[in-house]
Amino acid sequence: MTLTLPPAEAARELVEPVLREAVDRLDARAARVARYHFGWVDEAGRPAAAGGKALRPTLAVLSGRAAGAGLDGCLPAAAAVELVHAFSLLHDDVMDDDPVRRHRPAAWTVFGRSAAILCGNALLTVAGDLLLEQGTQGHVEAARALNRATLSLVAGQALDLEFQDRGDVTLDECLLMSRHKTASLLACACSIGVTAAGGPAALTEALTGFGTEAGLAFQLADDLLGIWGRAEQTGKPVLSDLRTRKKSLPVVAALTGGTPAGHRLAGLLARPEPLAEADLHDAARLIEEAGGRAWAEREAARRLDAATRHLANADLPPDVRDEFLHIARFLASRDH
Amino acid sequence: MTLTLPPAEAARELVEPVLREAVDRLDARAARVARYHFGWVDEAGRPAAAGGKALRPTLAVLSGRAAGAGLDGCLPAAAAVELVHAFSLLHDDVMDDDPVRRHRPAAWTVFGRSAAILCGNALLTVAGDLLLEQGTQGHVEAARALNRATLSLVAGQALDLEFQDRGDVTLDECLLMSRHKTASLLACACSIGVTAAGGPAALTEALTGFGTEAGLAFQLADDLLGIWGRAEQTGKPVLSDLRTRKKSLPVVAALTGGTPAGHRLAGLLARPEPLAEADLHDAARLIEEAGGRAWAEREAARRLDAATRHLANADLPPDVRDEFLHIARFLASRDH
Repeated sequence: MTLTLPPAEAARELVEPVLREAVDRLDARAARVARYHFGWVDEAGRPAAAGGKALRPTLAVLSGRAAGAGLDGCLPAAAAVELVHAFSLLHDDVMDDDPVRRHRPAAWTVFGRSAAILCGNALLTVAGDLLLEQGTQGHVEAARALNRATLSLVAGQALDLEFQDRGDVTLDECLLMSRHKTASLLACACSIGVTAAGGPAALTEALTGFGTEAGLAFQLADDLLGIWGRAEQTGKPVLSDLRTRKKSLPVVAALTGGTPAGHRLAGLLARPEPLAEADLHDAARLIEEAGGRAWAEREAARRLDAATRHLANADLPPDVRDEFLHIARFLASRDH
Repeated sequence: MTLTLPPAEAARELVEPVLREAVDRLDARAARVARYHFGWVDEAGRPAAAGGKALRPTLAVLSGRAAGAGLDGCLPAAAAVELVHAFSLLHDDVMDDDPVRRHRPAAWTVFGRSAAILCGNALLTVAGDLLLEQGTQGHVEAARALNRATLSLVAGQALDLEFQDRGDVTLDECLLMSRHKTASLLACACSIGVTAAGGPAALTEALTGFGTEAGLAFQLADDLLGIWGRAEQTGKPVLSDLRTRKKSLPVVAALTGGTPAGHRLAGLLARPEPLAEADLHDAARLIEEAGGRAWAEREAARRLDAATRHLANADLPPDVRDEFLHIARFLASRDH
């Protein structure tokens, strides 16, 4: 079954004007990079429509609805989360030397590394300001929650970079990295609407728990896609994570499982020379043989269950619960 | 006459514990880079004492005193400004490929470019959070003022990078860049204590004006030092700004003054090959002959006068006014 994300279009349409207004506040150079990154213009500045899934704004708007907030009240928080996400993508692509983002050349390949870094800095700054200008205590708390998520993103990226140079990464370390790099901002998106609306702490906590587990399920699904996904799905060549020898969760599970296949995989990935196509297919097979694929699939299902339990315990309008659940299933599936 | 900065030691001693506590909140990797950048440890993590001048914390503490705030109340704002300053230095050194900072190897040369960028991001984030956790409306306003200064820093760095590739930079553009890159954060430091204490808007405005003019005087003095300063003063080789062909204010004044010496300077700086020592001395002589040095000295004096007038119009305790004035004279002098 193919799952789709029905409310995304709606949230994107609602949040985009707020994002555009935020980008208009930047200096001309940062704004140009931001408009390209968000997919509103092409390399030459001509109008385009190449945006992302607006997953985080969708979750933030749902979060606001969970606390009974009106749509307008949710939008600054939804935009702020998306701005922080954009900041981290712009910076990470520079650090990872990743030339492709959302099926297009990454911003740094078009405008240069420094311009991408500066644009990220400006977006991070405007994100916080968007919340503070709302003038409520809830929005100050939301800005602080977003700060915590940002520190987590930074810590996650540092771990990710460190892992590239290490052969002894444990599965726990790898899960911690995913928690920082993926789950923390998703958890923030799932709870920030409640925080901004001054909703109950128990609801913030339940939705943070939900978002953390759903975020880990998402990362596991994404890591599976990075090895076994089709190019049309991922916008990257098949086996792309193996080409870059990324220490993704299924890979580390395979490497640390103590199986003969895992040992052979370690030997293959440790080769100094670039991996040929046949090596990549061998690596994918060894990960499967070592149990890395099955572990990641089981773990994603387990995280989805945990996310669902957090929702079950939360005091939520039924339609909001259903939409959260639908998104979590979408994230844990391999169709995103 | 050599001017010194008497209250700096005091402010540094007061602010350092707050900075250390803020750095302790970062992930271990970012914290290690930050401790090195602040001069608290050496490359190997051994204790050191190589800090900066704590100019901005000194100004922020004075700013708080201007509004009658107690010392404790000023310290989060003072630390936050210094954290943003550290963020911009860490990032700018990466972008400018500048291997020296405060007479030591720049952080990126020790820990890598990505680690320096990530540390900067973490410091920027913690800076805002330090203000928000104070829980007063004044501190929220202070966080917003710091956000505006950060956006200005980003815009200034983008202009600076653009200027490197352009031969037609005007003096107005160059002054605008200095306003963004140097004056805005100094102006924020001079006023943030008042803002955080909920002091009168007229005082914030007067001190912002003071800080902007003093900041421009500082940049002019710094640009003069970058050409004619001694290595012991600047921590860099003599004529260092000419070596990198930096479009500093005296250089642009010389280039755009329409003099024969200015034209010869343009020809010299446009040469594709590296400049020999003799060329550097020629360039310095041509800048002087074209009036760039005299203009920068006059302009620094003019900016110092303007700063002084802003102070004269402000409702300030006399001792605070005297200290602000003393610092402005120090900044506009060539002894910093």
